[in-house]
Amino acid sequence: MQTPDTYLDHMRATAPLVQNITNFVAMNVMANVMLAAGASPAMVHAQEEAAEFAAIASALTVNIGTLSPAWTASMQTAAKAANDRGKPWVLDPVAVGATTYRREVGAKLLALNPTVIRGNASEIIALAGEGASGKGVDAGDAVSQASDAAVRLARRTGGVVAVTGAADLVTDGTRFAEVENGHPLMPRITALGCSLTGIVGAFIAGQDPFEATVAALAYYGLAGERAGEKAKGPGSFQVAFLDALYTLDGHDVARGARIIRP
Amino acid sequence: MQTPDTYLDHMRATAPLVQNITNFVAMNVMANVMLAAGASPAMVHAQEEAAEFAAIASALTVNIGTLSPAWTASMQTAAKAANDRGKPWVLDPVAVGATTYRREVGAKLLALNPTVIRGNASEIIALAGEGASGKGVDAGDAVSQASDAAVRLARRTGGVVAVTGAADLVTDGTRFAEVENGHPLMPRITALGCSLTGIVGAFIAGQDPFEATVAALAYYGLAGERAGEKAKGPGSFQVAFLDALYTLDGHDVARGARIIRP
Amino acid sequence: MQTPDTYLDHMRATAPLVQNITNFVAMNVMANVMLAAGASPAMVHAQEEAAEFAAIASALTVNIGTLSPAWTASMQTAAKAANDRGKPWVLDPVAVGATTYRREVGAKLLALNPTVIRGNASEIIALAGEGASGKGVDAGDAVSQASDAAVRLARRTGGVVAVTGAADLVTDGTRFAEVENGHPLMPRITALGCSLTGIVGAFIAGQDPFEATVAALAYYGLAGERAGEKAKGPGSFQVAFLDALYTLDGHDVARGARIIRP
Repeated sequence: MQTPDTYLDHMRATAPLVQNITNFVAMNVMANVMLAAGASPAMVHAQEEAAEFAAIASALTVNIGTLSPAWTASMQTAAKAANDRGKPWVLDPVAVGATTYRREVGAKLLALNPTVIRGNASEIIALAGEGASGKGVDAGDAVSQASDAAVRLARRTGGVVAVTGAADLVTDGTRFAEVENGHPLMPRITALGCSLTGIVGAFIAGQDPFEATVAALAYYGLAGERAGEKAKGPGSFQVAFLDALYTLDGHDVARGARIIRP
Repeated sequence: MQTPDTYLDHMRATAPLVQNITNFVAMNVMANVMLAAGASPAMVHAQEEAAEFAAIASALTVNIGTLSPAWTASMQTAAKAANDRGKPWVLDPVAVGATTYRREVGAKLLALNPTVIRGNASEIIALAGEGASGKGVDAGDAVSQASDAAVRLARRTGGVVAVTGAADLVTDGTRFAEVENGHPLMPRITALGCSLTGIVGAFIAGQDPFEATVAALAYYGLAGERAGEKAKGPGSFQVAFLDALYTLDGHDVARGARIIRP
Repeated sequence: MQTPDTYLDHMRATAPLVQNITNFVAMNVMANVMLAAGASPAMVHAQEEAAEFAAIASALTVNIGTLSPAWTASMQTAAKAANDRGKPWVLDPVAVGATTYRREVGAKLLALNPTVIRGNASEIIALAGEGASGKGVDAGDAVSQASDAAVRLARRTGGVVAVTGAADLVTDGTRFAEVENGHPLMPRITALGCSLTGIVGAFIAGQDPFEATVAALAYYGLAGERAGEKAKGPGSFQVAFLDALYTLDGHDVARGARIIRP
C-alpha cells in the first residue's frame, strides 16, 4: 500500500485518456474537473463509436443521470468493450432508485461488473436492491446506512464500491477505508459527485482500484476543503475548487488526506 | 397577500423537488441556480420515466430551448402527469416564434394550461399568436408591448404569465404586478432566463402561483443587483450571482424587493 | 486589409445572430463566450428546424464533438441551407481522427466546403486524410506540422483554414498569417477551442473570412492573456476570460494583437 499522493502523481504523469458517457448536466464541469486535475477526458457516447473509443481509452466512466434508450445501449456496449480489453470502468448510478427505468438500467450495468461503483448512500442501497429513501438525486440516507449494501455489491461484482457523503466509505468486500475530506458546500453545486466519478476513472487507470479510489476521494475532498476556505457561496466555491484541483500537489495530499482504516 | 420574503422562506423550508425538462445550454447553470437558492432540482426527460417522475416531484418546468421529437413527447407526457396530480408546472417558450416547429410545440404545450408561463416580451407575444420581433432567443420587443398578449394568455390558460425584461410584468388576467429588480448584465449571461423558470417552479410548489411568481422574480432580480455591484463582466457576475442567491435571506428580500402594484 | 480592431468593432455593431450546432460539453460556455464578446448565439440543431433557422441566422457553426445520426443529418442540412443562402459557416472537426464514425462525418461536412475550418493540428491533419497523432480531443501534433495539410484543405474547399495551438496559423491557400496571442492555461479548460469557433462564426458574418478569422483569433488570444494575468488556476481563468472578452475594446486589440504575416 502506497501513500495517496503516489496515486495522484502517477495519474498526472500518465494523463490518462478517460472516456465518459455521462449526463448533460455534468458534461462541462466533469471535463473541467478532470482537466484541472491533469487527466484527458473525452465525452464519447454515440452507439456508432462508443465501443471503438473504449478500446483507445485507458478507462471508462458510465453515469445514468440523463438516460435515453440509445445512450443506455452505448453504455452497455462501451462497458463490454472495456471488460474485453481489460480496461477499468466506473459506474455512477445517479438516482437509480427513483424510477422503474433507472432500476432496470442500473441492474443491466451492474451485471457487467464495474471495476468501481461510486454513488451516494441512497443510490448504493437502491442498486443493491434494497429500499432507499433518496428523493430525486440527493441522498436520503447516511453513508453508514449503506455499508452493508456496499459490501454486498462489492462481493457480487468483484469490484470496489465507494459510498460518498459527509464522510466517504470505500470497500472491495474485504478491505475498508473511510475518507473524511470534504466540505459541506459540495452538495450545493451540481454534478460534483458525477465529476468525482471522472476523477476516480482517471486514478484507477493502471493502478490498484481500491487504493486509487481512496486516494482520488482524499484528493477531491481536500480540494473541496481548500475551496471552502475562500468561498462566499457556491459560485466562488466552484472557481476555487477548480483552482485547488489544479494547484494541489502530492505533498499537499500526503499531508492533508484524512483516511481511516479499521 | 404575504410579503415576498415569506415565499422564499417557505421554499427553503420545504426544499421542493422540481423536475426540469430543459435545454442543453441551461441544464448545468439551472441546476446550480436552484441548488444555490435552496431547491432540489432533477433533470429528468426520458420518455421512459418523465411521467413517473412528475408524480414524485412537487413541481415541473418545461423549456423548449433545444427540441427534438422525443423530448417534445416527454414534455407533453410530463405536463399531463403534473396536471393529473394537481402539481403546478411552468412553461418557458424559448424563441417560440423563430421557427414553424417551435410554434407547433409551443401551441401544444399551451393547450395543456401551464400554471405559469415565463418568457421575454417577444416570446409572450409570439405564443399568444401575434407578430413578434425577437431575433433568435433575444427579445426584440419591450415588456410593455407584451402586456395585452400576457393578459390574453393568462385568461386562456387560467394561469399566471410573467414577462421578464428590464422590468418584469406578472399577471393572472385580473391581478397585476411589476417587478423592478434586476441588472443590465443579466442578458449577457446565457440561460439566466431559463434558470429563473426553475426558481419560479420551486417557489410555486405549494404556494399561490401569482404571489409566488412575483416573489421569485424579486428575489432573483435582487440577487442580480448584488452580483452587479461586484462584477467586472459576465464571468465575475455569474460567480457573484450564485453566491448572492445562496446568501440572500428573507430580510434582504423584504427590504430590497421593488414590486409595484397598480 | 484593415486592422484587427475594425473586425471586432463591426461584429459588435451588428451583433450577428449565429446558429451553432455544437457538442453538449461546449454549449453553455460557447454561448457565454459569444454573449460576452457581443454576438447573439442560438443553439438550434433539431432536424425539424435546423435549415429554417440557418436561413434566419447570419452565420452557422458546426462542431462534431458529440455526434449522433440525427445531429449529423442536421449538420449537413444546415450547412447546405447556409451555402444556398450565401451565409458563411465554420466547421470544427473535434477529434475527427479518433474513430471511423468521426472520419466519415468529417468527410461529408468537408465536401460541403465550409467557409472556415478551425481545429487543432491533429484534427487538421486527420481531416486532410493524413495520419495524425492526437489522442482523444487533444492535439498530438505541433501547429507547424499541420501547415501543409491546412493549405491542401483550403485549396480543396476554397475556404479558410485555422490551425490553433500555442501559436495559430491561418491560411486561405494563398494568404498566410500567424497569431501569437494566447495563454498556456487555455487547453486546461474544456471547450475553449469550440467556443473560439463560435467567435470566428460571429466575426465572419458579413466580413472577409480570412481577415476576420485572423482578427477573431487575436482578440480571443488577447482575452486569454488578460485572464492569465489574474488567474490562479483554470477556475479563476474562466471567470477572468469571460470578463476580458466583455471588456476588451478595439484599442486593446489594435495594441495587443500579435499577428505575423510572412
